[in-house]
Amino acid sequence: MQAWPRHKAPRQTWHDAGMSSAFTDLCRYPIVQAPMAGGASTPQLVAAVSEAGGLGCLAAGYKTADGMYQEIKQVRGLTSRPFGVNLFMPQPEYADPAAVEVYRNQLAGEATWYETQLGETDGKRDDGYEAKLAILLDDPVPLVSFTFGCPTREVVQAFDRAGTRTVVTVTTPEEAQAAQRAGADAVCVQGIEAGGHQGTHRDNPETDSAGLGLLSLITQVREAVQLPVVAAGGLMRGGQIAAVLAAGADLAQLGTAFLVTPESGAQPLHKQAMTNPLFVHTELTRAFSGRPARGLVNRFMREHGPYAPAAYPQVHYLTAGLRKAAAKAGDPQAMALWAGQGHRLARELPAAQLMEVLVAELDEAKAAFAARGAE
Amino acid sequence: MQAWPRHKAPRQTWHDAGMSSAFTDLCRYPIVQAPMAGGASTPQLVAAVSEAGGLGCLAAGYKTADGMYQEIKQVRGLTSRPFGVNLFMPQPEYADPAAVEVYRNQLAGEATWYETQLGETDGKRDDGYEAKLAILLDDPVPLVSFTFGCPTREVVQAFDRAGTRTVVTVTTPEEAQAAQRAGADAVCVQGIEAGGHQGTHRDNPETDSAGLGLLSLITQVREAVQLPVVAAGGLMRGGQIAAVLAAGADLAQLGTAFLVTPESGAQPLHKQAMTNPLFVHTELTRAFSGRPARGLVNRFMREHGPYAPAAYPQVHYLTAGLRKAAAKAGDPQAMALWAGQGHRLARELPAAQLMEVLVAELDEAKAAFAARGAE
Repeated sequence: MQAWPRHKAPRQTWHDAGMSSAFTDLCRYPIVQAPMAGGASTPQLVAAVSEAGGLGCLAAGYKTADGMYQEIKQVRGLTSRPFGVNLFMPQPEYADPAAVEVYRNQLAGEATWYETQLGETDGKRDDGYEAKLAILLDDPVPLVSFTFGCPTREVVQAFDRAGTRTVVTVTTPEEAQAAQRAGADAVCVQGIEAGGHQGTHRDNPETDSAGLGLLSLITQVREAVQLPVVAAGGLMRGGQIAAVLAAGADLAQLGTAFLVTPESGAQPLHKQAMTNPLFVHTELTRAFSGRPARGLVNRFMREHGPYAPAAYPQVHYLTAGLRKAAAKAGDPQAMALWAGQGHRLARELPAAQLMEVLVAELDEAKAAFAARGAE
Repeated sequence: MQAWPRHKAPRQTWHDAGMSSAFTDLCRYPIVQAPMAGGASTPQLVAAVSEAGGLGCLAAGYKTADGMYQEIKQVRGLTSRPFGVNLFMPQPEYADPAAVEVYRNQLAGEATWYETQLGETDGKRDDGYEAKLAILLDDPVPLVSFTFGCPTREVVQAFDRAGTRTVVTVTTPEEAQAAQRAGADAVCVQGIEAGGHQGTHRDNPETDSAGLGLLSLITQVREAVQLPVVAAGGLMRGGQIAAVLAAGADLAQLGTAFLVTPESGAQPLHKQAMTNPLFVHTELTRAFSGRPARGLVNRFMREHGPYAPAAYPQVHYLTAGLRKAAAKAGDPQAMALWAGQGHRLARELPAAQLMEVLVAELDEAKAAFAARGAE
């Protein structure tokens, strides 16, 4: 287990004697609430998780820089405990405009059906990254994580000076090495079980079928780099948190488990779908955003997934209105029902109570494992 | 943790005081060497693993009943410790003969290139199941496991009477429930990380992208059935074994880790490919056998995988000669290089030494996890 760099004086700390995790001063329990862009990670959810001894995370993705800042201020009004903010990295312009136009034509019938328009696809590809950086460096938060790429050394160093810890989302050992080269403080290791977008640094359809399961990935990343590991992907129970810690992770990150809490801002239809027996499987799809993301298999995914182009965020803009119209019409079959592979195990409990249950399960799993005796 | 049914008097037992696993009398350490059909699981490998305190397993698949029996006798000559035998379940006739003929035409150039013939596809689909059952019931072994389906209650009961434990390979919670209904003693939970064939009970291309990662699957199966769990898929290190045990598995099953041992009968080219930097990714493919199996991505998989039909074992017969000819020509690009997602972590150690290293790593991971203090 690697220690956080010593030069960083944590801004807000408390200590649970006996806990050896490198994240001791950020959270009492080794549980991170995953940043879920699109509305689920409300300030209320983030604050509730941090208050309960976990690490809550805001999702800046798809928000304006000011929208992000308003949420940060709301969290600060609700808790004095540490929390994180997740940023989407700017995307290179490599999508094929012709492929996006073909997809637009293929979705024309959907727009007619839901009585809406397909979106313009010339929107920005940088998600307001520079403006968000400026705010976060001006008024620092305890932790910033990055998705869809790796920040530069300069950005990481700026956060270092600000006393902010940096975490880069990775899906391969090579991406973890890039994070280490950039000077990041930790990696968030995302297995293919994870709900929502895969944080792959560069989307490449050729490796669509080569994604690694979480337990394989944790070990390969730990052998490739010397950084603390946050493990993400399909984690729903304390026993699974115990498993990733036993494999050497420092923290476990859970998204779908928190998506169904009352504090989450996910659409009610989205929450209900998690345990609706209509939705049995999840799949990775480019149908909604142009980048692989895991969601419950519904009509839209089945129909359009097979030919959706690798064109993020263009396809995200293209389908935004459709998804909203479907939600408004109460039809989950054309919504992006992001979900991890453990969605059927979702429990609709208030966040603080879910934290309690997870910690109790973790303790129980740890005791049961210890009781197996000498092996 | 569930106990094995009490009525079964273990045929060969020894006991390691303090070990609480339900498999105590079968092996000292919670490590199973996966049965690897196709030649890797030699009697020498199986005996070496069982002698070292693990549970070695023969693979009856693709062998004649008599070939299987000769191997059982060889194992018995090498060790008095328990071991297992894995059977392939008979396959229903649902493959489309026209699709197989189309695939035959698509592979014509391969046959020419490797100066060989494509195989006849009217071979048996039952893998000599009944004849193998007769031998195993006449002269019982400690454990029999099943792949590609679930045995009937009658077969399970016959093994019960013979004192043989039964394990059914499963890839979904629903398959685990079928195993429980049939009366099986345990399930082998196979995550999508696993090398070689997925043991899915009925091959269905519609759910090709819905396979579950091991850690998600263990928990979902444990909540669906009351059976001991053997966890398989991508496990290469003791820390990963610790992880699956912490998640509630009783044993960990490793294939690729043992494939590279000198006792393994895998082709030398196959062993070398595991850590050859030419082969970076694995994928599930029907290209070689007609059923999804995970192997190192090579030319043959890239070229033919996208259109290979769901037709097992017909495609297995079709490509058998090709694969042999490629191996003979020293060309790994048309061999079935089965490998789990952890292949890059393979260590070419004698099986007994690998067992020692795995147990030491397991102990270390367990101690490190316990030392994390109160959480």
